Amino acid sequence: MRSKIKSLITALIATALTVTSIPDLHAQDVYQASRKAWVTEAERLKPTLHQIEKKPIGIVSIVPDSKAFQGWKVKAAGDLAKFYNNSFKQQQSVILDFGEHLTGYFSFTLSPSERTPDAPLKFKLTFGEVPSEIMTPYDPYKGDLSRAWLQDEIITVMDIPATVKISRRLACRYVKIDLLGSSQYFDFKISNVSFKSVSSVKDFPAPLNQGVDTMIKKIDFVGLNTLKECMQTVYEDGPKRDRRLWIGDLYLESLANAYSFKNHDLTKRCLLLLAGLSDADGKLVGTVFESPEPHPQVGQHLLDYSLLYNVTLKEYLDQTGDQATARSLWQVAKKQIEPIIGLVGKDGMMDYQKATKEWWLFFDWKEGLDKQASLQGISIFALKRTYELAKMLGKEQEVKEIPALVALMSKAAKQNLFDSKAGVFISGSDRQLSYASQIWMVLAGVTNTAQSKEALTAIAKNDKALLPGGPYLYHYYIESLIKSGMNETAKSKLVGYWGDMVEKGADTFWEVYDPKDELVSPYKFAPINSYCHAWSCTPVYFIRKYPNIFQ
Amino acid sequence: MRSKIKSLITALIATALTVTSIPDLHAQDVYQASRKAWVTEAERLKPTLHQIEKKPIGIVSIVPDSKAFQGWKVKAAGDLAKFYNNSFKQQQSVILDFGEHLTGYFSFTLSPSERTPDAPLKFKLTFGEVPSEIMTPYDPYKGDLSRAWLQDEIITVMDIPATVKISRRLACRYVKIDLLGSSQYFDFKISNVSFKSVSSVKDFPAPLNQGVDTMIKKIDFVGLNTLKECMQTVYEDGPKRDRRLWIGDLYLESLANAYSFKNHDLTKRCLLLLAGLSDADGKLVGTVFESPEPHPQVGQHLLDYSLLYNVTLKEYLDQTGDQATARSLWQVAKKQIEPIIGLVGKDGMMDYQKATKEWWLFFDWKEGLDKQASLQGISIFALKRTYELAKMLGKEQEVKEIPALVALMSKAAKQNLFDSKAGVFISGSDRQLSYASQIWMVLAGVTNTAQSKEALTAIAKNDKALLPGGPYLYHYYIESLIKSGMNETAKSKLVGYWGDMVEKGADTFWEVYDPKDELVSPYKFAPINSYCHAWSCTPVYFIRKYPNIFQ
Repeated sequence: MRSKIKSLITALIATALTVTSIPDLHAQDVYQASRKAWVTEAERLKPTLHQIEKKPIGIVSIVPDSKAFQGWKVKAAGDLAKFYNNSFKQQQSVILDFGEHLTGYFSFTLSPSERTPDAPLKFKLTFGEVPSEIMTPYDPYKGDLSRAWLQDEIITVMDIPATVKISRRLACRYVKIDLLGSSQYFDFKISNVSFKSVSSVKDFPAPLNQGVDTMIKKIDFVGLNTLKECMQTVYEDGPKRDRRLWIGDLYLESLANAYSFKNHDLTKRCLLLLAGLSDADGKLVGTVFESPEPHPQVGQHLLDYSLLYNVTLKEYLDQTGDQATARSLWQVAKKQIEPIIGLVGKDGMMDYQKATKEWWLFFDWKEGLDKQASLQGISIFALKRTYELAKMLGKEQEVKEIPALVALMSKAAKQNLFDSKAGVFISGSDRQLSYASQIWMVLAGVTNTAQSKEALTAIAKNDKALLPGGPYLYHYYIESLIKSGMNETAKSKLVGYWGDMVEKGADTFWEVYDPKDELVSPYKFAPINSYCHAWSCTPVYFIRKYPNIFQ
Repeated sequence: MRSKIKSLITALIATALTVTSIPDLHAQDVYQASRKAWVTEAERLKPTLHQIEKKPIGIVSIVPDSKAFQGWKVKAAGDLAKFYNNSFKQQQSVILDFGEHLTGYFSFTLSPSERTPDAPLKFKLTFGEVPSEIMTPYDPYKGDLSRAWLQDEIITVMDIPATVKISRRLACRYVKIDLLGSSQYFDFKISNVSFKSVSSVKDFPAPLNQGVDTMIKKIDFVGLNTLKECMQTVYEDGPKRDRRLWIGDLYLESLANAYSFKNHDLTKRCLLLLAGLSDADGKLVGTVFESPEPHPQVGQHLLDYSLLYNVTLKEYLDQTGDQATARSLWQVAKKQIEPIIGLVGKDGMMDYQKATKEWWLFFDWKEGLDKQASLQGISIFALKRTYELAKMLGKEQEVKEIPALVALMSKAAKQNLFDSKAGVFISGSDRQLSYASQIWMVLAGVTNTAQSKEALTAIAKNDKALLPGGPYLYHYYIESLIKSGMNETAKSKLVGYWGDMVEKGADTFWEVYDPKDELVSPYKFAPINSYCHAWSCTPVYFIRKYPNIFQ
């Protein structure tokens, strides 16, 4: 048996080597023949953004309230006409509510109302996706992402009258305007407050049937808005932050898009961009930028994301039947499974220690999560999807070792990571119990449906199990419940988690949400969290793909 | 005698009425026939600004030092190469020194130096004409002019690499750059720090002879720079603040210009603009704006400034012989003396109470200054110059009452305001002793040379006398000393006052300077004072007009 495994591994490594050693004397670039065309085609597919001018719908105040989300409650506070018709020097400060989450460009007009303007004006503008961003002091700043992501801008307006346009693209529902400097010798009013909202989505899909649960309808609506806001010239992770294409977000967004806006060209553009901006050795980079020209975040390698690229490509082909694109990108998919081959031991177990040294393993924003089982699971999951993709392209001969490898790794997982007494998967030397481990083992199909159900049921009963840290892993949780035939649980968990956000006032779904800690932040400062985050939009996918379960 | 005066006044009022009652059925506008042409011609004369790209000459630190101007000493602190070649994330903050006062536009380039930029950057930029502006916290703001004049800008740079251009025109020598927000995932450098300096002055006049006192040469140089910086598309009062045309500044700038840059077209443009933007009843407005189109500061009437318009026009004609312009604007000059006629009593005294109700009387930034004597003096002074102007234009018949009025008012001044025992002029019901009163009486020629000398000598010996508050009145002080034949005192006072600023490091002369209180501010906050202020440039005029005295 051992020698059989050894020969299998050797064969796999040989395959991998064959793929990388394209006989090209000019460059080390494994995709040299295709790379330029990928980027060119991606750029050709760059969508035109649709613009809609939005106006604030009201003036609000935001007051402390321990029962409100993050401790801040929004209350109506006077009407817009009063704000527009009166001296802003008298008002000094206002919070405007646009009534929905918007991504785009803010502007307003300043006009003298008494005497001749004789000096510049100074304003602080604060843009918030959620109320707490408006009310929480940002400084001294304690977060560990750039302070510049926070959407407060201080502006000087030298000449009045003026129409002020904030050049920075913003993502917000609320805008606070504070007057920081004015002259005692003239007065002025603010008018024409406007937000040029942008998205590559133009039309919404048909609403759900009238008879569907109100909460499901609300979740679907908020999910659609979340996805719409993130669909710009790429699938962004979040329009406030980081405003760029990540493979992990792309995967979930493309799933939701397939069951809603069906803008498959955006998926294609993103798949091509990522391929075109990959490393010379063929490794995908987890995130890429569009400006000033498309370029990768050099060195940003996430193994789980690289593997999900293959899954995304397979789903894209499923949805579109676009064989040409899938064939062109097949070489990329084949490349992404090589790290599995490099990391898998003779015993069929991924070398977790080595993987953590060579890669960023993401899976979830959850402190202390041991990712050994998740890595094993996602590797099997991705190998299976890649093999399905190969079959769809008639390329299974090129990866013919996959089925045996999947079997080996699945068996190893059961042997090494499954606590058969408790019916759950453990992870790491401390035998950590987490949702993540169950989820990825279920999705990998390591267990049969009954075992999957048992594992997911057991973990839910265990108070010590590490819960999902955020919506990204929660997506896979719902997926794993469905896969295990736990449809009612899937629905109640979806309603429980995303419905909770809706009840707390979400206009769009959040990057991070822990029902027990509304101020949790992977970046040590809740206002820098993204409150419109792509990976949180997938209720749209579940509700519309599985109407029998959710509608 | 009384009846003679009464009839004189009656005659004068009649003249005034005649002048205002132009038989025009279409409008109340007394200049209707000329107004449009004045503005059109002023706009035609709008100068093209010359641009010079300037680079910082060094890195400095600014440290507390009780002996330095306003308590802040500038010290060299490392070289530019080190600043440019090293991570700015490591440096966090820098103060750049351009080595001279500049007016214009600031820019710099941001380039990644390590890893891929993944987040925006946030900076605070602080621009200072003098060191204290860089070091003094601005908030909580206590000044009474708009906080927005202070030159601190907070900017967010969304994409790196970038060349950042601050759209606001700035006036400064020092620039502090503070990093407020950056990402732990990349590093960057600053390069190409640049200042596009603008002025309508292109070439400097010949320097003074080599043999001239070093300090006189320095004062002349700083004065020329002050004037150059203020000469933009109008004679501005100060390029930092208020950046606009005021009649009082125009007068002093045009004097200095006449003996240096000789850009008489700028003087002409300003005289025409002020005329074109005057009130419909013919009254000049003390200050006008150029943007978005030329317009006055409605209701801003300064009697002393209105009167100085006539003096400026007379000087312009002296310098250029441009009879056409002077003839066209003569109607304006004639209008400006009407308020004197309206305010002068039968006894030849200006009604000071009435004047203060109807006008802003400026004269000086000096708290508590009683302006009765100054008003009487400047009125006589302006009447005399207006009459000289009339004679140059052959129009003396139109203002033939002036000589008698001057005599009456001069006599009244001597009778009512002169303390013959002390040999000085007093002002107001409290018989206030001030330099201002002596200066304006001397310039009015109320006293003969010996008496003038006596008054100016006596005031200088009186510890209780109110000193000039700033360079504006100091100009008239030097002028009055020269007029009184006190040439040595004029020189020593000029060197004492402006030379003191030079010794304290002035690159340009200041709006306000009290040798005994370097933090004095008419606006309750020294950093908002202008440190390049037109009205402080007149040593250029004195030194170059009176070489025998000053060189």
